[in-house]
Amino acid sequence: MNSELDLINYLKKLKTYDKKIFMGIGDDCSIIKFNSDKKYVFTTDTSLLGPHFSSDYSPEEIGHKTLATNISDIASMGCIPLYAMYAITLPKMSSSWIKKFFKGAMPLLKKYKISIIGGDTTKGPLSITIQLVGCQKRDILTRRGARLGDNIYVTGTIGGARAALLSKNGSKAYKYFRKYLVNPQPRVDIGLRLSEFANSCIDISDGLAKDLKNITIESRKGFEIDIDLIPTCPKFNQYVPEKNREECLLGGGEDYELCFTANKKYTNNINNLRKITKTRITKIGTITRSKYAYYKKGELYDIKTDGYDHFRVK
Amino acid sequence: MNSELDLINYLKKLKTYDKKIFMGIGDDCSIIKFNSDKKYVFTTDTSLLGPHFSSDYSPEEIGHKTLATNISDIASMGCIPLYAMYAITLPKMSSSWIKKFFKGAMPLLKKYKISIIGGDTTKGPLSITIQLVGCQKRDILTRRGARLGDNIYVTGTIGGARAALLSKNGSKAYKYFRKYLVNPQPRVDIGLRLSEFANSCIDISDGLAKDLKNITIESRKGFEIDIDLIPTCPKFNQYVPEKNREECLLGGGEDYELCFTANKKYTNNINNLRKITKTRITKIGTITRSKYAYYKKGELYDIKTDGYDHFRVK
Repeated sequence: MNSELDLINYLKKLKTYDKKIFMGIGDDCSIIKFNSDKKYVFTTDTSLLGPHFSSDYSPEEIGHKTLATNISDIASMGCIPLYAMYAITLPKMSSSWIKKFFKGAMPLLKKYKISIIGGDTTKGPLSITIQLVGCQKRDILTRRGARLGDNIYVTGTIGGARAALLSKNGSKAYKYFRKYLVNPQPRVDIGLRLSEFANSCIDISDGLAKDLKNITIESRKGFEIDIDLIPTCPKFNQYVPEKNREECLLGGGEDYELCFTANKKYTNNINNLRKITKTRITKIGTITRSKYAYYKKGELYDIKTDGYDHFRVK
Repeated sequence: MNSELDLINYLKKLKTYDKKIFMGIGDDCSIIKFNSDKKYVFTTDTSLLGPHFSSDYSPEEIGHKTLATNISDIASMGCIPLYAMYAITLPKMSSSWIKKFFKGAMPLLKKYKISIIGGDTTKGPLSITIQLVGCQKRDILTRRGARLGDNIYVTGTIGGARAALLSKNGSKAYKYFRKYLVNPQPRVDIGLRLSEFANSCIDISDGLAKDLKNITIESRKGFEIDIDLIPTCPKFNQYVPEKNREECLLGGGEDYELCFTANKKYTNNINNLRKITKTRITKIGTITRSKYAYYKKGELYDIKTDGYDHFRVK
C-alpha cells in the first residue's frame, strides 16, 4: 500500500452491512438512500498547512478554499450541498482566527444555503476536516458511466493552480496565478445541469490526467485527449515556461473544474449550458476502448503523469 | 473565544437553512430528519497524538479508541451507529500501520455492523477524524430533558482513565489503569435501552462535573451529587493518592461511560437494566433547581473543576 488509491481499495474490500448504501467508497462521494425518495451523498476531506495551503493564505482564504474543495466533490456528483461538519485543529484557539475563517466560508455557506450541523476543535498542528452531506436534485453523476465515443469536456481553464505552485513566491507569475490556487469556485450549478445528460463526471483535484484516468478505470474505458485543446487562463503561455506547461495541464491538480463525458448527440445541450452559465466548456477529447493517450501537435503520446497523490512513492 | 464551548456557541448562531435539521450543534450529535420516519444523528471527532493518544499506543489501540469514542457519542443519544467516514493524516503512508489500525477498529465495526462509506488520507502529523452517522431505534436521548428531582446515574466506573494519565508511565499504577484509558467500550446497548425511559444522557468524555454541567445547562437545572457514591475501579484507592482522587472522579475525562438522569419511578427499570446488561449502574445524585454542588463526607461543596477542555485558558 503506497498510495491513497491503495487505501481506498483496501477500505472498499471491508464489509458493508447496510442496504441503504447505494454506492460506497471510490467516487467523489458515497451515496446513501435513506427511507425516502431522494439519495444523499457524503464526502470528507482534510486540508493541511503544507500540502493544501501555505502560510501566505489568510484565515479567510483557508475558510473559503477548504469549503470550496469539499463542495466541488458534491458538484461533481451533480448534487447540491446541504450540511457541513467541521473538525478544526488549531495550534492556539484564537477568536479572531476562527471568525475570519468562517467569514471566508460565509459567501459559499450563504450562496448554497449550507447549514453547519456539527463541529469539533482540537489543539494541534493546523488542520481542517470538513464533512459534507448533499442530495440529488436530478440524477446522480458518477465516474462509472463513461461510454465509448463520449466526448470529453472540461469547464473553465486548467493549469492555473499548478502554475502558481511552480512560480516563485512573490513573483509576478505567482501573483497572477494565485487566485486560481487560492480561490477555486465549485461548479454546483453546472454539475446540476450536467446531471440531465452527462454520462460521467469528476472534479479536477488531482490533475486532469489522473482524474480522467479515474473516470475511465471506473468505466472500464480509455481516453484520447488533445493537449492543444485544453483551455488555459489568459497569460498562461506568457508566464509558464514551455517545459512546465505539460505538467500544469495534465499533472497539475487543484483546479476544481469539472471534467465530464457526454454522448456526441448532446452538443446542443453543451452550447446551451455555456450560454446559461456563462462558463467556458471545452471539448478536449474522446472516450476510447482502453489506452490513456494525448495528442500534442498532432502526435500521439502515452499518459505518463499520475497527477498529485498525497502518498505516491515516486 | 477561549474555549471549545465558545466556538460551539459561535457556530450555533450561524444561520441554518434546512427544515430537516431537527437539532443542530450543541449536543453529542446533531439530529436530521430526512423524508423518512426515522431520525439520523451525526457526530465528528478528531483524535491527535498528544491530547488523545500517546506514543505508547499501538496502531490497533488507536484504531479501537478513535472509533469507540465516536460510537460513544451515538450511544449517549440512545441511537445505533451505521456509517463511518475516516479522514486519516499520517506522517508516512504505511500499509502495515493502516492494516493494524483497522484491525483494531474491526471488532467494533463488526459488533455494531458499521459500514465505512468514505475516506481521505493526507500526509502530515498523525491525526484521525471520524464522522459517524447513526439512527434512532426508539426515542433520541439529549442533554436537554433533565427534570427537577431526576435521579442522576453513571454506568461502569469513573476516574480510571484520568488515574492512568496521572500515573507515571511504566509504573504499576499506569499498567493497571491503562486499559481504562486505552480501551473504552461504548455503551450502545445501554443507551438504546435508556432511550425508553431516561430524561437526558451524555457520555463522560470531558469529566463527570463538566459533562453533568452540560446536561444541566441545556436543561436549565442544577445538580447535587455525592462524591462518595461515585463508583471507582477496584484498585482506585490503592493506587491513587488522596489528593488526586477528586480530580479523577469529577474532572477526569475519557471514561466514555454514560451519565444519565431518570425519574425516580424508574428504579425498577434501572434494576432490570443492570441485570440484562450485566453492567454497574450507580445512582450518584439528584437534579436540583440551579446550583452545581457535591457532597463529600456529608459536607456540601461547589463544583470548581471544569473538566477537560482542549482550549481552556486556565
